[in-house]
Amino acid sequence: RVDGDRLWDSLMEMAKIGPGIAGGNNRQTLTDDDAEGRDLFRNWCEQADMTMTVDRMGNMFMRHEGADPDLDPVYIGSHLDTQPTGGKYDGVLGVLAGLEVIRTIRDLGIQTRRPIVLTNWTNEEGTRFAPAMLASGVFAGMHDEEYANSRLDAQGKSFGDELDRIGWRGQETPGERPIHAMFEYHIEQGPILEAEKKEIGVVTHGQGLWWLEVTLTGKDAHTGSTPMNMRVNAGLGMARIIEAVNRIAMAHQPDAVGAVGQANVYPNSRNVIPGKTVFTIDFRSPDLDKLTSMRSQLEQEAAEIASNLGLGIAIEPVGHFDPVTFDERLAGMVRDAARRLGYGHMDIVSGAGHDACWINRVAPTVMIMCPCVDGLSHNEAEEISPEWAKAGTDVLLHAVLNAAEV
Amino acid sequence: RVDGDRLWDSLMEMAKIGPGIAGGNNRQTLTDDDAEGRDLFRNWCEQADMTMTVDRMGNMFMRHEGADPDLDPVYIGSHLDTQPTGGKYDGVLGVLAGLEVIRTIRDLGIQTRRPIVLTNWTNEEGTRFAPAMLASGVFAGMHDEEYANSRLDAQGKSFGDELDRIGWRGQETPGERPIHAMFEYHIEQGPILEAEKKEIGVVTHGQGLWWLEVTLTGKDAHTGSTPMNMRVNAGLGMARIIEAVNRIAMAHQPDAVGAVGQANVYPNSRNVIPGKTVFTIDFRSPDLDKLTSMRSQLEQEAAEIASNLGLGIAIEPVGHFDPVTFDERLAGMVRDAARRLGYGHMDIVSGAGHDACWINRVAPTVMIMCPCVDGLSHNEAEEISPEWAKAGTDVLLHAVLNAAEV
Ligand SMILES: NC(=O)NCCC(=O)O
Ligand SMILES: NC(=O)NCCC(=O)O
Repeated sequence: RVDGDRLWDSLMEMAKIGPGIAGGNNRQTLTDDDAEGRDLFRNWCEQADMTMTVDRMGNMFMRHEGADPDLDPVYIGSHLDTQPTGGKYDGVLGVLAGLEVIRTIRDLGIQTRRPIVLTNWTNEEGTRFAPAMLASGVFAGMHDEEYANSRLDAQGKSFGDELDRIGWRGQETPGERPIHAMFEYHIEQGPILEAEKKEIGVVTHGQGLWWLEVTLTGKDAHTGSTPMNMRVNAGLGMARIIEAVNRIAMAHQPDAVGAVGQANVYPNSRNVIPGKTVFTIDFRSPDLDKLTSMRSQLEQEAAEIASNLGLGIAIEPVGHFDPVTFDERLAGMVRDAARRLGYGHMDIVSGAGHDACWINRVAPTVMIMCPCVDGLSHNEAEEISPEWAKAGTDVLLHAVLNAAEV
Repeated sequence: RVDGDRLWDSLMEMAKIGPGIAGGNNRQTLTDDDAEGRDLFRNWCEQADMTMTVDRMGNMFMRHEGADPDLDPVYIGSHLDTQPTGGKYDGVLGVLAGLEVIRTIRDLGIQTRRPIVLTNWTNEEGTRFAPAMLASGVFAGMHDEEYANSRLDAQGKSFGDELDRIGWRGQETPGERPIHAMFEYHIEQGPILEAEKKEIGVVTHGQGLWWLEVTLTGKDAHTGSTPMNMRVNAGLGMARIIEAVNRIAMAHQPDAVGAVGQANVYPNSRNVIPGKTVFTIDFRSPDLDKLTSMRSQLEQEAAEIASNLGLGIAIEPVGHFDPVTFDERLAGMVRDAARRLGYGHMDIVSGAGHDACWINRVAPTVMIMCPCVDGLSHNEAEEISPEWAKAGTDVLLHAVLNAAEV
């Protein structure tokens, strides 16, 4: 079994980098804080005699050698970047649980047949640069490097320039390494495991997603002296589309969600009718038909809303993945490990996107989930218990040891 | 009659300071560009032998001496600050038309009985620091200096600190100067004069206003993994209130308007359900009952919307004035001047707030309005014709000369 205290100490140590304003973290991708977090992680891995390779997307691969170095390695990976008002566990748990697995293997003097590689995937969150899971997406061949490098943040800085600036661009071509199996351990970010009192979620499926960036174009005009019938109000159009997103998601219940998380109004002045709004819709479902139907219904309703108000409209997809089915053989190893160790477990669908969703396209992949308090995530108050974290890391250890022998 | 070309040249010269991105201006109050605009205006006035006094709110008073220096002066004033994406005429026309009046009086060797004082009022627009017409409001005793100095912009900088920083805080106590009469010439910012083909609007009334800043508090949460029924979505609440503002304004037609111009979403991340939104409602009407009714109806509906969604709500008034009735005697002087000069004129209600609305509380005041193309203002494409500007400045000259004798 792993050392739960050592794992927890590492989590708390990492959380000191890029602190938030309410107990959580703001360690967004490719910031100076991200670089500092990467340095800390590298130091820990080097202390455990692992060797580092970095690819051209900044993905970090920390290798623990196996008895047979020529065999394809088993991967454990997640991400160290956070939301702007994020928690201490989203992503970080999966990376540092992997570190704890390696530390435990060394403590116990276990030698695995296959090498084990610990990975920190760049820009999982997708807040600073859309889409989410950008660098694991490049690794899996879903995006090309050119596309990734040219993604812009809200200040107009590019992913490529920022990766160079923080000094974390490596040499390896993304995707050029074989993967025998990949495990991602992550907090659930939803309420089910806690409600069902299970320490372990065996993730068999993941929701699909559409991110649609809508730009409405109206006419800047004075809020006082412009008669109501002469207004071309991009803010009112945005309001109606936000309502439509909610209505459409509700009409596709169960197994469907929709919201607008990011919204910008221009020129954003109290006495100017908004001449432009730009906002991103997030639709998800584990059911491909529902996902497709929500998108097409929204596109139709949004066009009508815009036309009724005389607004110009453009809708650009800025993120997409289909629903995911994870590897059943690896899921079986996770269930076996939980059973052997005596932890409660259940099968579950991931509501969020994860790097594992992309890697699943190029190699057998599975996820393990940890409960989180009140299902709260993407919030500085995100919380888990040390016992849950230890349970999942124990299961990860056993499942990885199993996969590393076959 | 005034020199229309000289007036137009001055307008174009001022427009070079703080240029916008689409042919207009971004010369927001208490920025370096505002300071540069003030310098240019001071130089022009000093070349016309006027003497400057500045009060503690940064209001500029440029005095042209009268035959009897002890008589209360006639004032001509408006503002040089602009919206972030503003036009070249909103405010500026009234200040530079006043300058053209003084230049013409000097060219013609006219000596007026009363002094004439040209005023640039600080922070009329209210975009950087709410409320609008802040410094004329202090002058008229509507706000105290402490309140004004503590107003914050979006970066958390205060009005007082920024006024000191640009070096335009004067010594005079605001409001400590007698005013015989005040004239403000301004673009209409609405479509009526152009449609009615009148060069001159005689402003007999002004709309009242409420600015209500709404803060909705929900819960940051993951857009993917949070079930629909567990969401406390401050973005959805904002959308419903924006729609309600529009519906309430439409239900109070005619003579009522309402919109939300400024809206900020937190943390503004594509995959986070907004945990907080802050936005400002702008309601106006020339009818006090309608204005009051719109506010109270909104407050009631917003409370219901928030409660249905489980959101916290706070509503803070950040701007207010009652409908205004301008001085009928001065309005008569404007009509006489237009008639004598052969310009088409009509009585009109101001849709926007103006410094004249506050000064009207402490001295006889009237406004003259200039048509503007398509009624468009608070937009970089704001446009007027040189002929309109000359017509209004001619009328201003004659009305001011009249008032300066009585
Ligand atoms: N796990 C997680 O929050 N990933 C970010 C991508 C998403 O929005 O699902
Ligand atoms: N004239 C003008 O746009 N003033 C700003 C205050 C207002 O919004 O009415």
